Amino acid sequence: MRRLPLVLFAAGLLASGVACAANTTIPATAIQTATQLRDQALHDDTAYRITASLTTEIGPRLAGSDADQRARDWAVAKFKELGYDKVYTEPVTYPLWQRRSEHGAIVAPFPQPLVLTALGYSAGTPQGGLTAQVVKFDSLDALKAADPVSIKGKIVYVGYRMQRAKDGHDYGMGSAVRTTGAVIAAGKGAAGYLLRSAGTDAHQRIAHTGVTGFRDPKTAIPAAALSNPDADQLERVLAYGKPVTVKLDLDCGIVGEYTGANVIGEITGRKHPEQVVAIGGHLDSWDPGTGAIDDAAGVAIAMAAGKLIGDLPQRPDRTIRVIAFANEEMGLWGGRAYADKHATDAGKFQLGTESDFGAGRIWRMSASVKPGARGAIEQIAKVLEPLGVAYDANRPGGGGSDLSQMHAKGMAALSLTQDGTHYFDWHHTANDTLDKVDPTELAQNVAVYAAFSYMAAQADGNFGSAPGAFAKDGAGE
Amino acid sequence: MRRLPLVLFAAGLLASGVACAANTTIPATAIQTATQLRDQALHDDTAYRITASLTTEIGPRLAGSDADQRARDWAVAKFKELGYDKVYTEPVTYPLWQRRSEHGAIVAPFPQPLVLTALGYSAGTPQGGLTAQVVKFDSLDALKAADPVSIKGKIVYVGYRMQRAKDGHDYGMGSAVRTTGAVIAAGKGAAGYLLRSAGTDAHQRIAHTGVTGFRDPKTAIPAAALSNPDADQLERVLAYGKPVTVKLDLDCGIVGEYTGANVIGEITGRKHPEQVVAIGGHLDSWDPGTGAIDDAAGVAIAMAAGKLIGDLPQRPDRTIRVIAFANEEMGLWGGRAYADKHATDAGKFQLGTESDFGAGRIWRMSASVKPGARGAIEQIAKVLEPLGVAYDANRPGGGGSDLSQMHAKGMAALSLTQDGTHYFDWHHTANDTLDKVDPTELAQNVAVYAAFSYMAAQADGNFGSAPGAFAKDGAGE
Repeated sequence: MRRLPLVLFAAGLLASGVACAANTTIPATAIQTATQLRDQALHDDTAYRITASLTTEIGPRLAGSDADQRARDWAVAKFKELGYDKVYTEPVTYPLWQRRSEHGAIVAPFPQPLVLTALGYSAGTPQGGLTAQVVKFDSLDALKAADPVSIKGKIVYVGYRMQRAKDGHDYGMGSAVRTTGAVIAAGKGAAGYLLRSAGTDAHQRIAHTGVTGFRDPKTAIPAAALSNPDADQLERVLAYGKPVTVKLDLDCGIVGEYTGANVIGEITGRKHPEQVVAIGGHLDSWDPGTGAIDDAAGVAIAMAAGKLIGDLPQRPDRTIRVIAFANEEMGLWGGRAYADKHATDAGKFQLGTESDFGAGRIWRMSASVKPGARGAIEQIAKVLEPLGVAYDANRPGGGGSDLSQMHAKGMAALSLTQDGTHYFDWHHTANDTLDKVDPTELAQNVAVYAAFSYMAAQADGNFGSAPGAFAKDGAGE
Repeated sequence: MRRLPLVLFAAGLLASGVACAANTTIPATAIQTATQLRDQALHDDTAYRITASLTTEIGPRLAGSDADQRARDWAVAKFKELGYDKVYTEPVTYPLWQRRSEHGAIVAPFPQPLVLTALGYSAGTPQGGLTAQVVKFDSLDALKAADPVSIKGKIVYVGYRMQRAKDGHDYGMGSAVRTTGAVIAAGKGAAGYLLRSAGTDAHQRIAHTGVTGFRDPKTAIPAAALSNPDADQLERVLAYGKPVTVKLDLDCGIVGEYTGANVIGEITGRKHPEQVVAIGGHLDSWDPGTGAIDDAAGVAIAMAAGKLIGDLPQRPDRTIRVIAFANEEMGLWGGRAYADKHATDAGKFQLGTESDFGAGRIWRMSASVKPGARGAIEQIAKVLEPLGVAYDANRPGGGGSDLSQMHAKGMAALSLTQDGTHYFDWHHTANDTLDKVDPTELAQNVAVYAAFSYMAAQADGNFGSAPGAFAKDGAGE
């Protein structure tokens, strides 16, 4: 956010009529075609059919599982079926974490089962389970401030209640309790870690999984999330004021290394095939659900947008590259591998962004581009405006989850913010299934992606991508 | 329903001023006290505290489990703590069914796990699970009509979608698909049975358990309910038109016989201690949830109503008997044992009804009483009217789940119908937890039970209870 004043300054220059030959613009013919793509997308169910196909034919696809391999095969076949010109994969290597079984229970004073789910990179418990007293903290700060003496050998529980928001901003704290909280507890000698699920549902007996900050199995401890009603129950039991003992029985852990792949489909550019507009989603999902909103929808939005452009009578000037990323869930492995591989090529990226925040309507656009491309962004925004997308010139564009890594290497990036009001009700749970996807809202996303991608591909000029170009501009947010 | 015209005729006689000495009436002083009890109950949180106590301190309490025994101890202690005069138990013996573990998966063509739950009295699957092709029916009638040849050796799936209603009437069909459907499938040689959960939720990956019609382990087959999204998924997979194979791995079954108990607390009548107003709920619950709405709330409503009456300066004329029934869930075992034991005493019951339809507001009252008590029922209705309870003189009173059995033996009975609009979203699932209970709505129930029980206890005359009195009058509905 440190560079925002500069961005505003640049926007101000443009608004006051200062322009130069280097300024990027979208030709009128491109705007016309983009408008047609936009309107066509609203009546096209390709993205919904792709989402249904992936979630039905593959279902859950935890990174490194058999289903993950099937998902890659599916993606290759789907790109081909949709008429993409070029389909290929790029390897991604990461630690292989497996979930085999998970059980939890209050042992004393009131014995009863607890609904929980192990977190990514959680250690397993010893044979026979881990039984220990629970010590409760209301927040991450309280845990940070705690004396290790009060924690050593105990199961730390953090009861932070994530708040609902359209932009989902409280996931910042919710996920920090999960990722950082687990590491802090382990560092202070905790035997295990529990949190109230980072989710905005209140009444579902379904826990939200997600990754921890553990990367080294030697420092990991058993870590799990309680469903919200189970967190309520544990807090009620704790409120009796007696020592509360919980048993965790988690059979999970890192079992080695795995090499998966990002799967990539391209609509090859007619004039500048080496210059790419990069869009995508991630192919992996957490295992309890079928990953419909996280992130079959994102993959489908990008695939369907590319397909619409591919169906035009003529290929666009630049390449539309759709990337179905590997293992986003356990730490942006696909996105980081991609950025590492393409860092030196950052200048070949025209503009990019990834869809990974569900299937709700896009309501806000922001961009991190060179000042001379701000006018082109405004042209794009004008085409998206009738879809209910408001352009916020005061925010940077992050590029989405995996592509944030490429943005950090210098790719000019948009943020296309979806309505996440209900996203965290289902996110990372068994409830992330196809019925949570509204076909109409999904189509609106495709309209946005198809229109912006086409205009970026046809622009006169670039958006400022270059190695290191946005290193300080909110990149990697 | 065959006797309804007679009931209407009797009501008509009363309305036209025909009365005789035998007519039952509620004295004005009793109406005054009942009105006070009613208004007091609305501001009393005793029932909520009882519900919280049972669901927190005991949690799930499947009939015959260790927790079931702890629940009985809890009930005895709670009655005493609430000041009941007499607390005792009556044994109830039933087959002991246990659920140990349950897993399901689509094996082909698209392998993936299914969220399901074994049904009461389901057989277990063989070691290694049961794998068979699925044959789908849309309704119970379609299954009834099916040629056994199409079913033999297969897993029958019935996809009936239960409809939401304030009075929950579609549970009639929903539960029939579960109880009768399983028996019909087994009778036609099915290897296993699956149904779309008998629930009105659409988006929860949580299955609704419940009993089957199996009683003899020799004729039982493995039977389970799919969550609604899993039923959607199975139907989507079936729609591809390829053979669909499912694997069921259910470790469950009847392991012997168990003797539990109904737990009974009494506020002893001052003038006629042997004459009883019978109210109650059932103490057991299904095991996935903590049985808050089914039926800690019912037990709590009755216990709290009795306690309010017990707190009056003077004991009521007749006894208020609160019964916490054993094992309602697997076939009204507590209610049937109670009715068998007390059949010859039916004449000593003044009036009775059980609360077992959640914790929503009571909105309707109906009664099965002798014609000469119809006026007293109208007097009661008038006191309940300000609570939003409408008296429907055209319906019989069933007495609720377990007490329907005592009504069938001749006990005059009310039906106090709760708002069940959302009941079947949570019913028989892991989601049946305390957060589903609204303290204000619960208190309204206590107001109804306290007021009616007190007026029934103080009535001049009886309501027509006698052995066999209501045998044809909708009893046991």
